[in-house]
Amino acid sequence: MTLPHAEVETPVFMPVGTVGSVKAVPQHLLEDLDARIILGNTYHLYLRPGHALIRRMGGLHRFMSWPRAILTDSGGFQVFSLNELRKVTEDGVEFRSHLDGSSHFFSPEHSMDGQIALGSDIAMAFDECTEYPACYARARRSLDLTLRWAARSREHFERHKQERPWDEGFEDKTPSLFGIVQGGMYKDLRRESAERLVEMDFPGYAIGGLSVGEPRELTRQVIAETLPLLPADKPRYVMGVGYPDEIAEYAAMGVDMMDCVLPTRAARHGLLFTSEGRLNIKNKRFAEDQGPADPECGCLVCRRYGRAYLRHLIAAQEPLSAVLNTLHNLAFYLETMRKVRAGIESSTTALKSDL
Amino acid sequence: MTLPHAEVETPVFMPVGTVGSVKAVPQHLLEDLDARIILGNTYHLYLRPGHALIRRMGGLHRFMSWPRAILTDSGGFQVFSLNELRKVTEDGVEFRSHLDGSSHFFSPEHSMDGQIALGSDIAMAFDECTEYPACYARARRSLDLTLRWAARSREHFERHKQERPWDEGFEDKTPSLFGIVQGGMYKDLRRESAERLVEMDFPGYAIGGLSVGEPRELTRQVIAETLPLLPADKPRYVMGVGYPDEIAEYAAMGVDMMDCVLPTRAARHGLLFTSEGRLNIKNKRFAEDQGPADPECGCLVCRRYGRAYLRHLIAAQEPLSAVLNTLHNLAFYLETMRKVRAGIESSTTALKSDL
Repeated sequence: MTLPHAEVETPVFMPVGTVGSVKAVPQHLLEDLDARIILGNTYHLYLRPGHALIRRMGGLHRFMSWPRAILTDSGGFQVFSLNELRKVTEDGVEFRSHLDGSSHFFSPEHSMDGQIALGSDIAMAFDECTEYPACYARARRSLDLTLRWAARSREHFERHKQERPWDEGFEDKTPSLFGIVQGGMYKDLRRESAERLVEMDFPGYAIGGLSVGEPRELTRQVIAETLPLLPADKPRYVMGVGYPDEIAEYAAMGVDMMDCVLPTRAARHGLLFTSEGRLNIKNKRFAEDQGPADPECGCLVCRRYGRAYLRHLIAAQEPLSAVLNTLHNLAFYLETMRKVRAGIESSTTALKSDL
Repeated sequence: MTLPHAEVETPVFMPVGTVGSVKAVPQHLLEDLDARIILGNTYHLYLRPGHALIRRMGGLHRFMSWPRAILTDSGGFQVFSLNELRKVTEDGVEFRSHLDGSSHFFSPEHSMDGQIALGSDIAMAFDECTEYPACYARARRSLDLTLRWAARSREHFERHKQERPWDEGFEDKTPSLFGIVQGGMYKDLRRESAERLVEMDFPGYAIGGLSVGEPRELTRQVIAETLPLLPADKPRYVMGVGYPDEIAEYAAMGVDMMDCVLPTRAARHGLLFTSEGRLNIKNKRFAEDQGPADPECGCLVCRRYGRAYLRHLIAAQEPLSAVLNTLHNLAFYLETMRKVRAGIESSTTALKSDL
């Protein structure tokens, strides 16, 4: 995937940099992990420090000193998940800040303006993330609204995408806008959503409305049913997933892009992902365990620190705990994707040599 | 200064790694800053994770994966400053944990055993840190107790210093024990303390009981009066100081070693030390300031990030804020000492070429 700010090999897992920082990790260590693309949250950045400010600072890449690619979500997910008092109309969503209760309004046009101001490489259409469970009629209405918003998003984005605040050297490059498939857990609605989005001809497509509380098997099923409806020669992105075995599985199914707060958020709570499964590093049984978090991992944390030390750091509430745990979890996720890519490559090679 | 785990050029500022971590900074970034020696707090490490555990883990160097030098304090300062209900007897101090209120007892022998178990390169004699203000009679009694404890510390330390838990390759090396001058703000008591400690012939001497609330001018005065009483051919260490201009001033007066939580603690509150003075990076006036925290600083933070981003990180309570602010402040402190050393060297060279 060739983006304005990076070449990105797929399938790719994108670390989440919610509010202009992948929590606890300095940018140069993200580069050392070979992260090529991270995600920024339009909603959070809109509230703090604000899109207009980031535009004046030259865009999010420059503001946070991250020269590689950035994907921004539309703000829709947070507007819905962090706001019980939101008011949805045809025009957009009125919501209250989860920080100070102040009142705000997002429309597809606002979301596009915001994402263009941030200067993301990939922007996402403004969608309504259908809650789970939702009855058929509700999922249908929600889907229709999302499709009308997708058309408005696309129109506004195409008219204004040249206004991205990028530095010199990017004159001939523009950001891309991806559409988002909704439709709840209903196969025919997912199909309709996918088909109508594909008609609009986006350069990439996301499957949204998953990881909203549904059982894992249902997530997999919706992905399996929806993926074939999306063009295989364009990036297919599943938003908000998942555990390491899930991202490996979805990648093997043909998903090109995924993001999730799990590796970073779990790290701050002491949950480490390893080749031997999950470790709750807070556990007293690690108090004198000098082995690395993951004996098969070559990350800087596993090369240098033992479980006993990582356990001590979180028990003593040391800020270094979040730094090291996050570094390891991200290394594990990115390595998981590297292995999937290597597997795809070697099976492609095997196929070729069979011919 | 040749220590078992490092060559340390003096004057040196030692970052404080309270409970086995210089807060928020991964060890490899401390190495990148060229920190050669850090400080560990015997009191904090005694409570969490415990000296016996650290000994079983091969000592503090190995536990925290810090191959360079470590100085440990005696625990005395925290026992006194964090405990209102402490009970001091000739034998030692009974105190309550600031974490859970549990009851504990430290004697000079306990402190030595603890520091030997940690495996520090430099241990400190167990002292009573005289409070400020203290009347003459109180300072006198406190000083006498500290001198008796210094003798007990020395005796116990010499008998057990071979028991340090160091790895192979250190067979012929042992830790050193420094004495601590007390005496409140009274010149004759400081003199008596220094002279009686020098008679005991420690390999290095600290000036303790400063930075306990006294005015800055008094700190300077006590240092100026006490330094000449300590042998110039042995390390002279002022504990718990100070601001950048203070450490430069004290170094110029002949102080060889200093430590202070100020650069690390202030960083977490958004106070940055720069060649242009102190910046409260939280201040709204930095919201759109794209310049580096310190235009004269070459640290990785100043090379990569602008004030606007640092201000955003602390305003949004991002954990990266503590990491970056601490890195900068430590870089500034260590650079301040490098400049002092370069100044001393060049004036020495100038002196030689004059001859």
